Amino acid sequence: MVRFQPANVVTEVPSGTPIHVAALRAGILDLELPCGGEGACGLCQVEVVGLDAPVLACKTRVTSDMVVRLPDRTQAAARVLGDSHALIDPGLLPGRDCLTPLYRDLRITVPPASIEEHYSDWTRLTRTLNRNGGAVPMASQLPVLRQLAEALRAADGKVTVGVEDSASGQRVRDVRPGHSATRALGLAVDIGTTTVAAQLVDLDDGSVLATETAYNMQIRRGADVISRIDYARTPERLEELRGLVLETVNGLVRLLADAIPVDPRMIRAAFLAGNTTMTHLALGLPPRYIRESPYVPTVNSVPELRAHEVGLNIDPQAIVAFAPGVGSYVGGDIASGVLCTDLSTGNRDVFLFMDIGTNGEIVIGNTEWMVACACSAGPAFEGAGIKCGMRAAEGAIERVAVSDGGEQVEYSVIHGGKPAGICGSGLISLLGELFRQRVIDRSGRFFKPPGAGRIVDHQGRRAFLLATAAQSRGGNDLVITEADIENLIRAKAAIYAACSLVLENVGLAWDAIARVYIAGGFGRYMRVADAVFIGMLPDLPLQRFRYIGNSSLTGAYMALLSREHRRRMAEIAARITYVDMSSNPQYMDSYVKALFLPHTDMERFPTVAKAFESRKRNVS
Amino acid sequence: MVRFQPANVVTEVPSGTPIHVAALRAGILDLELPCGGEGACGLCQVEVVGLDAPVLACKTRVTSDMVVRLPDRTQAAARVLGDSHALIDPGLLPGRDCLTPLYRDLRITVPPASIEEHYSDWTRLTRTLNRNGGAVPMASQLPVLRQLAEALRAADGKVTVGVEDSASGQRVRDVRPGHSATRALGLAVDIGTTTVAAQLVDLDDGSVLATETAYNMQIRRGADVISRIDYARTPERLEELRGLVLETVNGLVRLLADAIPVDPRMIRAAFLAGNTTMTHLALGLPPRYIRESPYVPTVNSVPELRAHEVGLNIDPQAIVAFAPGVGSYVGGDIASGVLCTDLSTGNRDVFLFMDIGTNGEIVIGNTEWMVACACSAGPAFEGAGIKCGMRAAEGAIERVAVSDGGEQVEYSVIHGGKPAGICGSGLISLLGELFRQRVIDRSGRFFKPPGAGRIVDHQGRRAFLLATAAQSRGGNDLVITEADIENLIRAKAAIYAACSLVLENVGLAWDAIARVYIAGGFGRYMRVADAVFIGMLPDLPLQRFRYIGNSSLTGAYMALLSREHRRRMAEIAARITYVDMSSNPQYMDSYVKALFLPHTDMERFPTVAKAFESRKRNVS
Repeated sequence: MVRFQPANVVTEVPSGTPIHVAALRAGILDLELPCGGEGACGLCQVEVVGLDAPVLACKTRVTSDMVVRLPDRTQAAARVLGDSHALIDPGLLPGRDCLTPLYRDLRITVPPASIEEHYSDWTRLTRTLNRNGGAVPMASQLPVLRQLAEALRAADGKVTVGVEDSASGQRVRDVRPGHSATRALGLAVDIGTTTVAAQLVDLDDGSVLATETAYNMQIRRGADVISRIDYARTPERLEELRGLVLETVNGLVRLLADAIPVDPRMIRAAFLAGNTTMTHLALGLPPRYIRESPYVPTVNSVPELRAHEVGLNIDPQAIVAFAPGVGSYVGGDIASGVLCTDLSTGNRDVFLFMDIGTNGEIVIGNTEWMVACACSAGPAFEGAGIKCGMRAAEGAIERVAVSDGGEQVEYSVIHGGKPAGICGSGLISLLGELFRQRVIDRSGRFFKPPGAGRIVDHQGRRAFLLATAAQSRGGNDLVITEADIENLIRAKAAIYAACSLVLENVGLAWDAIARVYIAGGFGRYMRVADAVFIGMLPDLPLQRFRYIGNSSLTGAYMALLSREHRRRMAEIAARITYVDMSSNPQYMDSYVKALFLPHTDMERFPTVAKAFESRKRNVS
Repeated sequence: MVRFQPANVVTEVPSGTPIHVAALRAGILDLELPCGGEGACGLCQVEVVGLDAPVLACKTRVTSDMVVRLPDRTQAAARVLGDSHALIDPGLLPGRDCLTPLYRDLRITVPPASIEEHYSDWTRLTRTLNRNGGAVPMASQLPVLRQLAEALRAADGKVTVGVEDSASGQRVRDVRPGHSATRALGLAVDIGTTTVAAQLVDLDDGSVLATETAYNMQIRRGADVISRIDYARTPERLEELRGLVLETVNGLVRLLADAIPVDPRMIRAAFLAGNTTMTHLALGLPPRYIRESPYVPTVNSVPELRAHEVGLNIDPQAIVAFAPGVGSYVGGDIASGVLCTDLSTGNRDVFLFMDIGTNGEIVIGNTEWMVACACSAGPAFEGAGIKCGMRAAEGAIERVAVSDGGEQVEYSVIHGGKPAGICGSGLISLLGELFRQRVIDRSGRFFKPPGAGRIVDHQGRRAFLLATAAQSRGGNDLVITEADIENLIRAKAAIYAACSLVLENVGLAWDAIARVYIAGGFGRYMRVADAVFIGMLPDLPLQRFRYIGNSSLTGAYMALLSREHRRRMAEIAARITYVDMSSNPQYMDSYVKALFLPHTDMERFPTVAKAFESRKRNVS
């Protein structure tokens, strides 16, 4: 029996089982295994009660009953599904003691006027606010002023003041008598082409109350930004797409509010990050010129708006801010994501940031310069266009272990229970395992015919059986087909080709990259070793990689809570230079070469080549 | 026959008539006669065609047909009734070539994007705006962005951009294809306790299109601010008072718009000046604490609002700004008025600014310091509470000449024709003349009984007949009663007492005042010599006085048109220190002493004493 702390989860495993497998059984997915359990990266360190030194969970086996203490930071991540905050350097998150959110309730006591100091009610209010750490509030609205005299006198000067910190200055939203016991809520949203993620945040202390994701309902009108831009060519259709994404976001707002439960009108501020097309569609801005040369959007830095203008079903007067974009194909989600890198800690090393969504965006640079490009990866890694694919939500297979040459499968399911489908991290993990176990060849085809092991026939093509109908939540076989694998290979090829090309563009070799950040909604954890193994990521030392999850959402959360982070995000957007990859004649060549596992040119993947060599030796 | 140029007005007068009397007959009131025609001030200089040097209109007599050329600046004033702009130093008005109004239409051409310079539509727009002299626009609204892409492409980049210059930065209000031929309009308003004045302004070139005044409809709920504050003690009554003043302002807006004619929704910006109570009532802010110790208003600097919030029937989205106030009894009208003094030219001499309305407000100071106080003068000088009083509008007697010991009366009527009543400047003129001609004694009583000369009986008390029923517009006798004269004396006494006391307060003698500005809605011209003669103004050399009319309206006009003037006005409000006069025990004593013509203490008015001495000698 193994007891995992601090989650206090218990599991029974046969003696000799590695600790990380036991953890997987216990439903704990917090152990980082970027090296794929090879003992190379050292990131899966745990403490075993009774042992003097920490051990590696991937290399230490269970021999008797034991208590395993997991590293602290994994705990927070386990609490909220989809919360990527635990994946980034905690030093980057806004400090809880010095939050400057877009909106906050300040509980203050305004002294009465006297004959000597007969300042107006408004002046006494703002002077007191300033003593409490705010900047001079510059603006207000008529209803606030109308209630001000009575509010200041109703409870001996004790008032709760709702203050907005907008780009154009501070604004008092309301003044209520007494010190309010209710908390102000905020909303962070990542509007992806395929997936929309939203987070309900307590603006008083910065805590995440709930996180939810949903497929963008616009999917029915096109799988990628180009098809949606084409669809939106009439005002009616643009309005339809605007309605669909708002329905998606408002649906998430309802889910979030019901989860607490709380009235969604208590949400006083929202920070939204999305790519340029998603932002245009959400606001009803015609996206046409984004895809017509010279490819310019209406706006990159959307001004702050009110919820009722945007159509969000929260407090109608809530302030709604948007992550600033760079250009037509590098949007606010990227500025938001780069906020999650150690760029802002002043680290001058060159980093590579990859946000892998329906579009793949790549930023390379350091504190001095940043260059970005985009490629169309497709929605495969978000589970869309994949037979049994799904987004990273309850019931999704998020990690797979294949053994015995493809005969045995182990997987873990988000929130446990029977699987309903497989999400991005599960697909990468599965593809890596199938390739590692020689179930598929370098072009992604199955070696064996249907009937052999877990290979089945699916509508005339070969497929791999992950779970039988009886084992699955929906009562259907869960399979991955050859068509699915082709989709995944095309997606990973697009990403790798774009990375290679942008590196060439800036005259750097892969090895010059000190840190690779991988962002995306794959799931809570992504096995970097698998992603390298299939050639999606470059073959660099695993320690250089950092999976940061949905960094667009995390950045939106940070910007929602901190003026300094909003400033930094704007600075990031202003400093990134966009490089157009689609017009680069080398791109197609580079892409075609990457349509193999891991790549046509094996020399680019020496680690993978070596693994194959050693297996061949083992086999022979 | 005398022909006055440039108005080209002709009149026939007997040979020997002074030019200024001929001008009065011709309906021309533009000649300044602050000395009362004594030849002392030199301000009535005119050119007589054929003569080499200018002559004084008060001292030069008509001997044959002549052409008289009036000074240029009087012409502009004659164009628009109530336009006080011509009364102030022209150098103070915003320069027409560098207007920075609250709202303006900029006609620009935005270059298309190119592959090399693929800035967003919004960025190209704002860059072009900045090249055209604006600061960086920081904000916009969703409808603007939604139409931006098409607007920029509809007329080869030619667009008309509506830009607001708000306190928190520039804001693009709309972008229309092509270069608009229509002009943007603005509104300047002075909300007085008794009289409301409004001006329609062309925001493109700063010209005044029309000026209108009306009595504040709140009068029916109280004659002064205190009675209105008392009335407004329930939310329903506050709302009633708010409705009444808005009805007044919106009525003026209709009149102004009809005069052009133009759609009032083309008014894109408004600047309002009013005393603190009027501002509170107009905005629906409870005024209660203005009159309860320690006398604090809700707000002195009202934030910028939208017309629909305020309830103005102009463009609902028009920006509405307010002149900043100093305190409960020195409001935005005073900051607005002080803008019309040479304070901002850097003149370091001490000035005295008096705004004589229903409340009298006094500011004394220079570029280094300013002190203000207020006194309750009552609405007599606005024609309210006076039997045949009226505000300075068409049909009002605005100047009176009494001769032959009260037997003969000459008057001029605004816009000519039969008189309907008498306005503030007419009342001062009349009171001065009656006192000078020894029709009334020093306490304001008529020397002679009814039946003697123009003395008539009016409801048991003596009255002076200005015009018979046949001579008047309404078919009623126009009289001034002893009760009217008591009212006027009380008003002038309040003003003089407050001035004296505030001077004592700052330790200055009257003679230390280099310039006295008299503001108020008396009429187009006020005879300073008369006002000194009755003891309303101190007995200083007449050249030191400057009547600047409705300076609150003029200041609002300047602030509507110029960012620099808005900044200066805020600076003035911030620098004025308020001194409470009502709690000063000497005030009543000082007031009672001033309840005589010109004053109990004749030594304070040596000029008046001297005039009486010389008359006595003439009589004896």
